[in-house]
Amino acid sequence: MPMMKAAVFVEPGRIVLEDKPIPDVGPLDALIRITTTTICGTDIHILKGEYPVAHGLTIGHEPVGVIEKLGSAVQGYTEGQRVIAGAITPSGWSNACLCGCSSQDGAGTRHGFRPLGGWRFGNTIDGSQAEYLLVPDAMTNLAPVPDGLSDEQVLMCPDIMSTGLSGAERANIRIGDTVAVFAQGPIGLCATAGAKLSGATTVIGVDRLPNRLEMARRMGADHVVDASRCDPVEEIMRLTEGRGVDVAIEALGTQATFEACLRVLRPGGTLSSLGVYSTDLTIPLGAFAAGLGDHQIVTTLCPGGKERMRRLMAVIESGRVDLGPMVTHRFKLDDIEKAYDLFGHQRDGVLKVALTP
Amino acid sequence: MPMMKAAVFVEPGRIVLEDKPIPDVGPLDALIRITTTTICGTDIHILKGEYPVAHGLTIGHEPVGVIEKLGSAVQGYTEGQRVIAGAITPSGWSNACLCGCSSQDGAGTRHGFRPLGGWRFGNTIDGSQAEYLLVPDAMTNLAPVPDGLSDEQVLMCPDIMSTGLSGAERANIRIGDTVAVFAQGPIGLCATAGAKLSGATTVIGVDRLPNRLEMARRMGADHVVDASRCDPVEEIMRLTEGRGVDVAIEALGTQATFEACLRVLRPGGTLSSLGVYSTDLTIPLGAFAAGLGDHQIVTTLCPGGKERMRRLMAVIESGRVDLGPMVTHRFKLDDIEKAYDLFGHQRDGVLKVALTP
Amino acid sequence: MPMMKAAVFVEPGRIVLEDKPIPDVGPLDALIRITTTTICGTDIHILKGEYPVAHGLTIGHEPVGVIEKLGSAVQGYTEGQRVIAGAITPSGWSNACLCGCSSQDGAGTRHGFRPLGGWRFGNTIDGSQAEYLLVPDAMTNLAPVPDGLSDEQVLMCPDIMSTGLSGAERANIRIGDTVAVFAQGPIGLCATAGAKLSGATTVIGVDRLPNRLEMARRMGADHVVDASRCDPVEEIMRLTEGRGVDVAIEALGTQATFEACLRVLRPGGTLSSLGVYSTDLTIPLGAFAAGLGDHQIVTTLCPGGKERMRRLMAVIESGRVDLGPMVTHRFKLDDIEKAYDLFGHQRDGVLKVALTP
Amino acid sequence: MPMMKAAVFVEPGRIVLEDKPIPDVGPLDALIRITTTTICGTDIHILKGEYPVAHGLTIGHEPVGVIEKLGSAVQGYTEGQRVIAGAITPSGWSNACLCGCSSQDGAGTRHGFRPLGGWRFGNTIDGSQAEYLLVPDAMTNLAPVPDGLSDEQVLMCPDIMSTGLSGAERANIRIGDTVAVFAQGPIGLCATAGAKLSGATTVIGVDRLPNRLEMARRMGADHVVDASRCDPVEEIMRLTEGRGVDVAIEALGTQATFEACLRVLRPGGTLSSLGVYSTDLTIPLGAFAAGLGDHQIVTTLCPGGKERMRRLMAVIESGRVDLGPMVTHRFKLDDIEKAYDLFGHQRDGVLKVALTP
Repeated sequence: MPMMKAAVFVEPGRIVLEDKPIPDVGPLDALIRITTTTICGTDIHILKGEYPVAHGLTIGHEPVGVIEKLGSAVQGYTEGQRVIAGAITPSGWSNACLCGCSSQDGAGTRHGFRPLGGWRFGNTIDGSQAEYLLVPDAMTNLAPVPDGLSDEQVLMCPDIMSTGLSGAERANIRIGDTVAVFAQGPIGLCATAGAKLSGATTVIGVDRLPNRLEMARRMGADHVVDASRCDPVEEIMRLTEGRGVDVAIEALGTQATFEACLRVLRPGGTLSSLGVYSTDLTIPLGAFAAGLGDHQIVTTLCPGGKERMRRLMAVIESGRVDLGPMVTHRFKLDDIEKAYDLFGHQRDGVLKVALTP
Repeated sequence: MPMMKAAVFVEPGRIVLEDKPIPDVGPLDALIRITTTTICGTDIHILKGEYPVAHGLTIGHEPVGVIEKLGSAVQGYTEGQRVIAGAITPSGWSNACLCGCSSQDGAGTRHGFRPLGGWRFGNTIDGSQAEYLLVPDAMTNLAPVPDGLSDEQVLMCPDIMSTGLSGAERANIRIGDTVAVFAQGPIGLCATAGAKLSGATTVIGVDRLPNRLEMARRMGADHVVDASRCDPVEEIMRLTEGRGVDVAIEALGTQATFEACLRVLRPGGTLSSLGVYSTDLTIPLGAFAAGLGDHQIVTTLCPGGKERMRRLMAVIESGRVDLGPMVTHRFKLDDIEKAYDLFGHQRDGVLKVALTP
Repeated sequence: MPMMKAAVFVEPGRIVLEDKPIPDVGPLDALIRITTTTICGTDIHILKGEYPVAHGLTIGHEPVGVIEKLGSAVQGYTEGQRVIAGAITPSGWSNACLCGCSSQDGAGTRHGFRPLGGWRFGNTIDGSQAEYLLVPDAMTNLAPVPDGLSDEQVLMCPDIMSTGLSGAERANIRIGDTVAVFAQGPIGLCATAGAKLSGATTVIGVDRLPNRLEMARRMGADHVVDASRCDPVEEIMRLTEGRGVDVAIEALGTQATFEACLRVLRPGGTLSSLGVYSTDLTIPLGAFAAGLGDHQIVTTLCPGGKERMRRLMAVIESGRVDLGPMVTHRFKLDDIEKAYDLFGHQRDGVLKVALTP
Repeated sequence: MPMMKAAVFVEPGRIVLEDKPIPDVGPLDALIRITTTTICGTDIHILKGEYPVAHGLTIGHEPVGVIEKLGSAVQGYTEGQRVIAGAITPSGWSNACLCGCSSQDGAGTRHGFRPLGGWRFGNTIDGSQAEYLLVPDAMTNLAPVPDGLSDEQVLMCPDIMSTGLSGAERANIRIGDTVAVFAQGPIGLCATAGAKLSGATTVIGVDRLPNRLEMARRMGADHVVDASRCDPVEEIMRLTEGRGVDVAIEALGTQATFEACLRVLRPGGTLSSLGVYSTDLTIPLGAFAAGLGDHQIVTTLCPGGKERMRRLMAVIESGRVDLGPMVTHRFKLDDIEKAYDLFGHQRDGVLKVALTP
């Protein structure tokens, strides 16, 4: 039985590199040889035991690789092709998918919906921090990488970029809008880029770290607000001359940022929430205009599927957005435990790491 | 100075009928002789002092009447014409109006937005519980009543019907959707009617009062749930065989109903909120899928303006919806204090009262 | 090799019942034993040689049946289950599907789009006018029939109802809209029902046949216009007091009706086109306001997939729409040639026939 | 009676500078002293007699100026303020405006809709090629110019930029779309900028003039196609590797470009039409997939109103789009006849002229 190395969740606090069998390929699957992958903030939640997954599961949901083997029923691809797959791998055939809600895919369940059901890699099936990855529903999920793009250029597409941009897309930004993005970690930075890409003409990035605020400017922020030095709500109201913003994007997952988003919204504005929360949330009565402010609150789980990946790579290819500078550190897969240590403790100004087997 | 009778807020607990001067008519105004009006739940909040208005203000925001006098710059109407105006009277020219958000009209303010700014009658200017009413921005707001419709048939258009239907419209109901409506007071009943009118094929009405549940069936509910006899969340999950609803409409304004809406939503579903809340709200982490459920929460303040009124009267005229049965009691304006007493205490199965000067 | 009867296109003018092998079942397929099917106007185009298909192809795309055999990779169904499948059978995994455009499915082609590519039954693969039907991508397409619904009640779902309703849905009908539907054949009748179901409050049905106009009233038309007795454009302008309609639905496929739709549209209105045209179309300059009228023209090919079918059956189950009266004639499959003769010549007031093997 | 100079339509072929009285200011009007204005392609149609206007009318619909005098009922502005107004001046209070269709404003007409009714300057009332301009419904239409912007920087906002960008906006461009823009005159160039601003990642500009193609690149075109050297349909199909475009924008107003748009559209794509046509249009059956291609054709008349102007100036202010280079020539108002001569004959590579009284 051929073996491979894989980063496996052993118990809270321990993700280790182990030997595992290379998986068998079912009729609809594809086996990918990973050439580059990365670690996500969600993986840190798993590491800490805050988000439970099965012991022994391979972690990771951001694959770049080469097709090693195609399932017997898979058509339209060739072995040796460079591909990516989204962090979310919808089946394509669930009622959720056919209803335009593929991230909540519940393929095979009674109604076809399951909360977060589209997230399988490193959650309900083995993930991408390994030498090989089995991609389910391959025809729905494998997206060929254009020749001119490097692994690192497309490394953000599967999750960070798809999630971040969706924060802007779901808010129906109109040309001329003012948008505030709370938190400029990797997802917030992509939300900032997405707001600009969608026609916002004033984009305000908020964070507490100077290097992230600087990166926010590179991603398209017209203004940056250092929340360690001022009250960001007051500062945004000042910048908008009291008007408030048309759209506020939450990209951290805390009560404080969620609430700040509501407080800077103009009447009729939209709060687009990307963060993963860990507590109940409170909506302040006043900021919510007692329910009469014509507000919208929308939440989004990373959109997946090959068409989504194709579009994101087209953005990269066009040069509209350059996420290259977000890869701040590089490791061999063999050193993944060091990479977790660095990334988990947010040392050395890390934004994203690239891992290569 | 010609005088008229008007129901005036004196102090918390006291709305009384007083004599006031008939107002002067500015160039853009119209003076309406009220033929029928009504009392709204919001007026009860004012009566109780829960919602502050100026002492001496005439209350009421649901006018049916006849044009008595037109401002010098008003064109397109004739004196003697039967008309209604919405509870919300947008200017037409604020940035909010031009941005598609006319209920948050801030005409004359710096940015053109003001929370709830479109609500003027019985809030920031004298209202409709009087013999005469001055309608501002008359050309934006006066809607002629078709000949075949009685005062009582159109009495709900200015507020109740506009608000209730908007709960369904803002949720983007699709043909085949399942919709739950929490609370079947006048607005909830109109939301029920609106859900059916928008193509929902399973409409579930929730309330605790048998007469309201019966009325819910008349308005289009396919199922009714008596929340005094069962847990409505459990019952709705049973009715939907565990799937949950596509859309949940909140029409009461309490934490309990807001939260129940979230708990019955399928992933990707929409909570459309119409209620006026009086406390901060809590979003339970689980029902919100930690922010990853692709949910939408939308709030709506009653849409106004003459085109909205025209459309609502077209609904009535078409026979699609019959709100006649919602008028359960009738009073002369002279007896308005009795009407407040009955309506405020929700006695005798009252849904809506008709008041005629 | 087990054999079955099937209606086969032999050459222009000849569709005959022949013996064919019952097809083999691939891993993603399902074999359905047909219990009821029907003939569509499109089949008549095929019969006449106006729409080319391969010689020897089994015709028909409106199946109701029972699962006889499931492919090895198909999950979530059981043999013996009653099901329908749409006329359009999207793969679920093409770029077109993942882009929300599944009727133009080009699964397996380079870009994933192909005009009309989702239409496979009786077009590019064997169809439903047979004892057995092989359904491709079964998990995307098989929709279980609720227990309470008869074959005839769901017989319109695969094509006529899906197409007709989509004419209303794609036009974004708003509550209070006025809608004209040109031609009240089966699809036009469903468009009429769809307009009412979507919140239109004045629905105007146009045709030249009294029985179709009568059926239009049953389907929800508030007014009917007999185009054999008056100029329908003039009559609709009269009915709308010169305003024109918000939405005009074309359900015949001729220059005359396409043009009439434009002529009755108000500025800013939408022409929703369902017809299959056989000539170039002319847009009259005046009716198009020289391109400056803020008009929309949208075309729609029948939406398919199991979620669509589920929703349409929910409409039937709710009693909102009753298409039962549209089945005017019944035949055994053995008599399909007679059925083609009747339906092709539109004799005896035929709307739709039910065929049972 | 104080007099001013104004460019007046005398008869086909003759627009001349004449003395006219400075207009009186009604209660809702504002009088603007023009500081900069320009000539539009539409004015050339008027000059040639192709578009009829009243003899003696002042031409022009693109005003930049200073408030000279406010009507008695106008609030929220001060005399001396720098402002622009859109080419389209909606009332704000017609049913069309309240229905979201303000360019088709029919204020004062029976139904509130009139084709092109929002276009008043230089069409139904005196226009901007004069020393003074009377702006109707001033509170709906006057937009203050931010301090940092010059007259020339905002000169395109009233018409060219509003129209061009709307071609992209109305097409609902998604991130990752491919868009072709046919013709790179001033409006086409703004449509190119709008496509980029809306998230398109491949923008293809088509024209026959090298200087316009060069300008197209500056405005955001990723590819340019010289239609004088190749068949643009073939070239676009080559560039898209046979896929076609998601959106095609027509910015010339001819059968050839309209048809080319359809021929390069992928199934399900959108043709967004901005051109002013002068003949009936033909839709080729094949390019239209016989009506079954899920295509959309949308037409747009320049959006107006002060909120629109505010947003466009925000785009300029953000630096996202720089239309400065489109002003290729400058004239004094006294020399307007020379300017018409140059612009009408498209001499000397003219794109737009700036006229200053």
